[in-house]
Amino acid sequence: MKTYVIGIDYGTLSGRCVVVDTTTGTEIAESVLPYPHAVMDEQLPSGERLPSSYALQHPQDYLDVLRVTIRDAMQKAGVTPDQIAGLGMDFTACTLLPVDKSNTPLCFLEAYRNEKHAYVKLWKHHAAQPEADEINALAAKRGESWLSIYGGKISCEWMLPKILETLRHAPEIYRAADRFIEAADWLSRFLTGEETHSVTFAGFKGLWDEQTGYPSNDFMTALDPRLDGIVGTKISTKVMGIGQIAGTVNARGAELTGLKIGTPMAIPIIDAHAAMPALNVTRAGDVMLIVGTSSCLILNADTAKQVDGICGYVKNSVIPSLYTYEAGQAGVGDIFDWFVKNCVPATYTTEANARGISIHKLLREKAQKLTPGESGLVALDWWSGNRSILVNSKLTGMILGMTLSTKPEEIYRALIEATAFGLKRIVEQFASHGITVGTLCAAGGIAQKDEMMMQIYADVLDCDIQIAATTQAGALGSAIYASIAAGIYPDIQTAAEKMSKPPVKVYHPIAENVAAYQPLYQEYKTLHDYFGKKNGVMERIGK
Amino acid sequence: MKTYVIGIDYGTLSGRCVVVDTTTGTEIAESVLPYPHAVMDEQLPSGERLPSSYALQHPQDYLDVLRVTIRDAMQKAGVTPDQIAGLGMDFTACTLLPVDKSNTPLCFLEAYRNEKHAYVKLWKHHAAQPEADEINALAAKRGESWLSIYGGKISCEWMLPKILETLRHAPEIYRAADRFIEAADWLSRFLTGEETHSVTFAGFKGLWDEQTGYPSNDFMTALDPRLDGIVGTKISTKVMGIGQIAGTVNARGAELTGLKIGTPMAIPIIDAHAAMPALNVTRAGDVMLIVGTSSCLILNADTAKQVDGICGYVKNSVIPSLYTYEAGQAGVGDIFDWFVKNCVPATYTTEANARGISIHKLLREKAQKLTPGESGLVALDWWSGNRSILVNSKLTGMILGMTLSTKPEEIYRALIEATAFGLKRIVEQFASHGITVGTLCAAGGIAQKDEMMMQIYADVLDCDIQIAATTQAGALGSAIYASIAAGIYPDIQTAAEKMSKPPVKVYHPIAENVAAYQPLYQEYKTLHDYFGKKNGVMERIGK
Repeated sequence: MKTYVIGIDYGTLSGRCVVVDTTTGTEIAESVLPYPHAVMDEQLPSGERLPSSYALQHPQDYLDVLRVTIRDAMQKAGVTPDQIAGLGMDFTACTLLPVDKSNTPLCFLEAYRNEKHAYVKLWKHHAAQPEADEINALAAKRGESWLSIYGGKISCEWMLPKILETLRHAPEIYRAADRFIEAADWLSRFLTGEETHSVTFAGFKGLWDEQTGYPSNDFMTALDPRLDGIVGTKISTKVMGIGQIAGTVNARGAELTGLKIGTPMAIPIIDAHAAMPALNVTRAGDVMLIVGTSSCLILNADTAKQVDGICGYVKNSVIPSLYTYEAGQAGVGDIFDWFVKNCVPATYTTEANARGISIHKLLREKAQKLTPGESGLVALDWWSGNRSILVNSKLTGMILGMTLSTKPEEIYRALIEATAFGLKRIVEQFASHGITVGTLCAAGGIAQKDEMMMQIYADVLDCDIQIAATTQAGALGSAIYASIAAGIYPDIQTAAEKMSKPPVKVYHPIAENVAAYQPLYQEYKTLHDYFGKKNGVMERIGK
Repeated sequence: MKTYVIGIDYGTLSGRCVVVDTTTGTEIAESVLPYPHAVMDEQLPSGERLPSSYALQHPQDYLDVLRVTIRDAMQKAGVTPDQIAGLGMDFTACTLLPVDKSNTPLCFLEAYRNEKHAYVKLWKHHAAQPEADEINALAAKRGESWLSIYGGKISCEWMLPKILETLRHAPEIYRAADRFIEAADWLSRFLTGEETHSVTFAGFKGLWDEQTGYPSNDFMTALDPRLDGIVGTKISTKVMGIGQIAGTVNARGAELTGLKIGTPMAIPIIDAHAAMPALNVTRAGDVMLIVGTSSCLILNADTAKQVDGICGYVKNSVIPSLYTYEAGQAGVGDIFDWFVKNCVPATYTTEANARGISIHKLLREKAQKLTPGESGLVALDWWSGNRSILVNSKLTGMILGMTLSTKPEEIYRALIEATAFGLKRIVEQFASHGITVGTLCAAGGIAQKDEMMMQIYADVLDCDIQIAATTQAGALGSAIYASIAAGIYPDIQTAAEKMSKPPVKVYHPIAENVAAYQPLYQEYKTLHDYFGKKNGVMERIGK
């Protein structure tokens, strides 16, 4: 009898379950549930308006994913719960919620259902920027050693700014919270009854370090006296490494999911990181790039170096014994979506409709006919701020070079090029700090679909871009970790060799385009530094 | 019996004739003819493609205006040619064409009809930028005294760059040209048989100065030996002042127009300048602002000062004894038109159509609800380059501050604000060089129609903005000059007092908005200087 594992991938807008054959890594069936509440950035379910920069989620949606998709995928696959040897899970991060002693989200309680700070703060909730600024300033002033691991600046998307924001704006929620817990750890605890804090979340988003643990209580109380004793109480210290077992599915978990009691569950992992074994990106120097709404660059290395403006590195968080570095761009695909929604004229919409194609496809067709640099445009890809190198969510988009003959497809292409330049700037940062960047494997919706964009990336970066074979690298990766938890393979490298898929396509740089992009990239870099470091206009005038 | 005069206003896309009562200045009738060939910026009538930056016109269109609109306007007005006491004319500038000895445009000749340099180079023909650069560099190197009158830099829109471009790219056209003549002077010569060179065109666009005449033959031959002797041959030296008579309509002119032989014609004037007497802007310190496709700021002063980056000053060119300074913005309304054509989504178009309003009106409605600075955007208004202060047609548009929640109406408003900031920068330049700026009177289509924009101008400039009573200030102004040529009034001030109209509206600055715009304007200034003087990226990457 064949053995199967289940991988569950929690994205920004939906949860996805796959049933995977452990011998070959083949995805037998999948099931997707869009979150009923999606991203709450304008109002709570009660209708209460949310301030700008808010991005909340409803934890009930996550439970619905477990309830619906696991049964559905097993049924489609024609497998029984007996045949499921293990369960793995990946999640966006830092996606944090306050829970009470019984692991119940505070927003489930009648008392707090109209309180925005009782809900899940999604990774892209950006309202804690003032708190992030305060933490950065205090840590710099005190010379906190952990700050340099994160390039000298932490992001407002991370755990501590989000908690501090709650303390400052809703102290009663802070008091009522028994734990502030990552959504993935919350679900793992829900399913198994065991509390753990996955090292990837703790290390990459929680300021936890293998050597030194969390920031000191001294620092916490200097930040706010009410944070006294937070580590070990409201923040769990039960940090566990990737590849370990979080626990086994208990009666409540079995009832929710339809899985068998006792099914082992792997320690959950950050969504982007889960894709690495799925793509067999497991050697030092290997880079995985996820290009979707935003982009995430994850790099395995055998040395620990501090790289300015890079989100940090964590050991044993993806591949045991290697250091994993993470960097990223806060906006990629969502910039193009913004453009399509707000900036494409009716004549183009009409043409796309008449031809039965999407506006994206029409714009790509037109943009593809342009040569690099032909439009005379250059942009800064900061519509959602800058996550890596500048680490400033208050930076904004910029585009220059418009004339009266500038066409929409030229702007569209300039936006794509800007994201490529932004990525190159990150790759250069690693290289200049002595971290080798080797093979680059791209995954995510855009990598699969947009040939023009991937060719531009190869041309701008001047390197081969491999395209991942699966559109669901996250879910497959979670399934691979499940196979370790199930004891089917001895280690992640072995499992990845068996269960991952080779790239479906490789984009090679075109010499002529590489040459054309070099001077444009120099312009990008100058503008990057000018608006990122010298002229703070974006912060001063921003909303 | 009442006496009437005719004013003819040649704009960028159409010619307009008005019949005016000389006693009151009332416009009795008007007639407009859009140019059949409009602006030729993509191809010649033969289908031959034009390079980018070209903007040509067909001189036959100008003759058609005379043939059609004068008869039509007289008929509508119910007046006979006997009742027309004089004719005045204004024209865009520098709008230049080569003609043969018989005053026939070279493009009318079979031999040259496929030759682009044989056509009219419209004011906004920008292909002579390399020649302008060369002239500026040589003049600076030789320390030519005339250069400082124009703020140290002349524009590619002017006469000498356009002629030099022809010499370099089509030497046979240069050789065949008996004269390079402003379109207005060409028409005046066509109608009267007398050749004159109006001082406004010569002074503002032709490098002619009352004291020193044209640049020396030494300079011309240093520029290109083939220019030897050009002044007095291919460039006419018959410069005549405003208020004088160019001649009287001859038999050919009468046949073309339906006017009586012997009707006196005033020396033609630049279109924007013609509006000044029409709006009674005739005192030192008075400013007239024409806001349309582009903007033009014209200021009367009683002193001659050199103002960096301002197009120059000419004595006796609008009002005898005063110095007239001209500055301008190369793009205003055409930036908004570009935006509406290229950047407004189908949902907005649908809404505007459903409500039966224009997209401009819909955008204004939405933009009007925003407060100054609310959008977090700031733009540089250089879609057509920068005419005044930086004098560089290769500068391009820039906009920054975009986030994923930026709306089209926010960008639209930011573009309007950018043109207001650009204007304020010019006004400040005058003030800082000791030229008083007093009453500001705005004319042109946008000034009449766009209340939101005019309020923004008042708030940004922090001064009252009077709105001209006529939508056809140019044509009325031409008619006022015609009344001088006809001997009805002794001087322009007297004629203007009788025939001009008081402003229909005055916009007063709103203190709260004035305060909000001050820091934004400081940001604009910093970016203006950065992209205008420090980082030449726009020129380097531009088309």
